[in-house]
Amino acid sequence: MSEIIVNSVAEGYSVATVGNLAEFNGKAFVKEVLGTSSMEVSLGSIGAGKSTPFAHHHKQNEEVYIVISGDAEFVLDGRREPVSSGSIVRVSPSVSRAIENKGNELLVYVCIQAKEGSLEQYTMTDGVVE
Amino acid sequence: MSEIIVNSVAEGYSVATVGNLAEFNGKAFVKEVLGTSSMEVSLGSIGAGKSTPFAHHHKQNEEVYIVISGDAEFVLDGRREPVSSGSIVRVSPSVSRAIENKGNELLVYVCIQAKEGSLEQYTMTDGVVE
Repeated sequence: MSEIIVNSVAEGYSVATVGNLAEFNGKAFVKEVLGTSSMEVSLGSIGAGKSTPFAHHHKQNEEVYIVISGDAEFVLDGRREPVSSGSIVRVSPSVSRAIENKGNELLVYVCIQAKEGSLEQYTMTDGVVE
Repeated sequence: MSEIIVNSVAEGYSVATVGNLAEFNGKAFVKEVLGTSSMEVSLGSIGAGKSTPFAHHHKQNEEVYIVISGDAEFVLDGRREPVSSGSIVRVSPSVSRAIENKGNELLVYVCIQAKEGSLEQYTMTDGVVE
């Protein structure tokens, strides 16, 4: 199992690592380690021929999945969506979701959850160029 | 420049792709394409010897960066933090941030922004196993 290691904690930021993403193994949650307050971020992997151990949905959080490597199918309310490196999947809270690795390689992905409807402004309306 | 292509739009979810992340080139924003309401997600790349064109901070959004590949330094309120594949960086809104590619390969990263303090529950308190 890959571990998450804290590299640096400073006023206003923190840095950690799970090591080379291509070899990531297991599941690592970021919130408690880095102190995020707007989102939970996790890294996950699923071996060839394997699936998530259960389907799940959420009460109030939207999720976005980003596939780093591997080939899989997302099962979303029973519909199958093929994904591979560079796929990005948005899922509303109530949608049932599961992931099945359909390739011969390790599937590595990022999952982010944040409260549906909570973003008020973004990019050029929230960012300030210095 | 890599493009973001929509694969599927359905009730409660949407799927897009930017293609193989190892070869991602440029900047792609997800929100308008996938219809997220809790976060903005972007994919970014910086060539060897290059940096972000400017430093920036935010008004109300926390950011999390995940480095997919390459070697770089984050410059956070003037302090330098080395990062590579698997590094995860949390940045509070007011912190000045810039990225410098310090390796010989393309730097590819994910950036997520969401409203600081907006997450109310997560993981086992928000997720429902089916």
